Amino acid sequence: MSSSEWRRDPLSGAWTIIAPGRGERPNAFISPRTRSGDASSEICPFCLGNETKTPPEVFAIREPGTSPDSPGWRVRVVPNKFPALTRGGPPESRVRGLFESRDGFGVHEVIIDSPGHDRELADLPADRVREALDVYVRRIRSLETEDQCRYIQLFKNKGEEAGASLSHPHSQVVAMPIIPKRIEEEIRRGERFRRETGACFFCRLLEDEMSDGARVVAANDRFVAYVPFAARFPYELRIHPRRHTARISGIGDDEIAGLADILKTVFGRLKAVLSDPPYNLVLHQAPYSKTALKSRSELNLFFHWYFEVIPVLTRVAGFEWGTGFHINPVSPEVAASSLR
Amino acid sequence: MSSSEWRRDPLSGAWTIIAPGRGERPNAFISPRTRSGDASSEICPFCLGNETKTPPEVFAIREPGTSPDSPGWRVRVVPNKFPALTRGGPPESRVRGLFESRDGFGVHEVIIDSPGHDRELADLPADRVREALDVYVRRIRSLETEDQCRYIQLFKNKGEEAGASLSHPHSQVVAMPIIPKRIEEEIRRGERFRRETGACFFCRLLEDEMSDGARVVAANDRFVAYVPFAARFPYELRIHPRRHTARISGIGDDEIAGLADILKTVFGRLKAVLSDPPYNLVLHQAPYSKTALKSRSELNLFFHWYFEVIPVLTRVAGFEWGTGFHINPVSPEVAASSLR
Repeated sequence: MSSSEWRRDPLSGAWTIIAPGRGERPNAFISPRTRSGDASSEICPFCLGNETKTPPEVFAIREPGTSPDSPGWRVRVVPNKFPALTRGGPPESRVRGLFESRDGFGVHEVIIDSPGHDRELADLPADRVREALDVYVRRIRSLETEDQCRYIQLFKNKGEEAGASLSHPHSQVVAMPIIPKRIEEEIRRGERFRRETGACFFCRLLEDEMSDGARVVAANDRFVAYVPFAARFPYELRIHPRRHTARISGIGDDEIAGLADILKTVFGRLKAVLSDPPYNLVLHQAPYSKTALKSRSELNLFFHWYFEVIPVLTRVAGFEWGTGFHINPVSPEVAASSLR
Repeated sequence: MSSSEWRRDPLSGAWTIIAPGRGERPNAFISPRTRSGDASSEICPFCLGNETKTPPEVFAIREPGTSPDSPGWRVRVVPNKFPALTRGGPPESRVRGLFESRDGFGVHEVIIDSPGHDRELADLPADRVREALDVYVRRIRSLETEDQCRYIQLFKNKGEEAGASLSHPHSQVVAMPIIPKRIEEEIRRGERFRRETGACFFCRLLEDEMSDGARVVAANDRFVAYVPFAARFPYELRIHPRRHTARISGIGDDEIAGLADILKTVFGRLKAVLSDPPYNLVLHQAPYSKTALKSRSELNLFFHWYFEVIPVLTRVAGFEWGTGFHINPVSPEVAASSLR
């Protein structure tokens, strides 16, 4: 497998990961005419008994007395077999005229939610969802010690249309040396609001969404799920912790229980209302080390982590790529009302 | 049909068009399990003889003596039957706390490239491609008189995976009152480079890509097609005019011939190398009236229009939504070499 490379677009300033090795992944290219059927549990590398089909595990929650890379696990973490980023190589940029690149440094892991090939988070008992979330948080805490990285991205792709190449429920976690463009925008927004008002922008947004109420889908004493005012996609959701915390690694045990509860509710509703749609679940949080913009302690003051849920129901097309804006055919208030 | 609304996301600052009427479009939602077959030419509203199935035409190139909304046309322009934006309503923003919105003001037209239901630009004779491009430019020049709009977006979605709801080849043109986020980024880049060096950033980028050469796919005396250094998608291309011009409305007749030539070449190569892939063709150009950032004459100095071609071969997934960065499994140099 070739190693990957970060490259910066001179025009937009955005970084792309050029990762030729990933072209070898199953279903890397959409080709509906030739696409093979989904892996059955016999050949699924994430199923019990197939542990040797993945790289050696880096963490697992296991029955006492069972060995790594054998059955007996309930949640299992392995390096991505087709990683977008890998450790090794110098982190420095190479600049040649307008063209800036650097080695594809980073860490890319897969968290297998449970041994159940067909059991989504919504289908698992609450204590098993908590256990999976607990592993997400542990891996993130562990990756926060990678001193050449600055940001940790957690996401789940469910369904082929949402980019999943394997159907067995899993999430992915990526530690990277570059702050994502989306997160830089949110840092700027949060910083400006704090400077102007002294308050957390995200806390204020949550308050405003709750006092309006028309777009709130579900709430418990720790989390609120709502359709954003300017949702880009039909039935898009944000899941916000009520407590101001910059990173998910700051979550408490009682909050993990609240998160498990609201994720089960939200995914159960999506499944029922939209016939089990493909979706992306995406974490937004503060960088874990200082950035060009701000120190870690400053980030703590004005960043506030949250999850974004994007059901894949429409196509991204020319208008969206050309503008960076989206066209959403479902009013956020109607979407929220259907999901309540 | 409900009318649409622009809404601004308080967190990212990006605008979304909430357009509930478009939910009624064919294939508005992806549902592979229930998707109906493609319209045959008998029921296709863009085919000869079916002119009454579209709203009345706003422009056409016709055989002498034929009437509007009847056969005899070679290129035909109609209002989009399911417009994302419409004329009417005040252009002012409504602000309620953090939430900013305005009526879905704008113009949304469809340009039917030719009467041929199955004939892409790559399949048409060069003179017919020139005629289609000439109509694109005429409509853009006409829409530049819309005094409540500031930007014109032209794009083509080919294939269902690229967002086309009808397969008969067509492009869309949207005049809008808000400068796209992508264009604002490019304005900032161009303005900074001009301030620092006195030169056009886009001209310089084109020079650097040509002198490197590894990513150039095709060139004629007016245009150059290349895979960008940090291409976000496999086989992504930019098609740049050599002459510095801020907007496509400034194109000359000889340049239209050169553009027809390079588009036929590029789309012919994509068709041959990638088995007729779905794609988006997207215009990037300067706003046609002053912006919050710059006057029209300043924009003329440092903006330089181009087309972007995005073959749809991979899925946008959680990593991309969360970061704003992309993972490209095909090296730009390999892609360019395959397409040469």
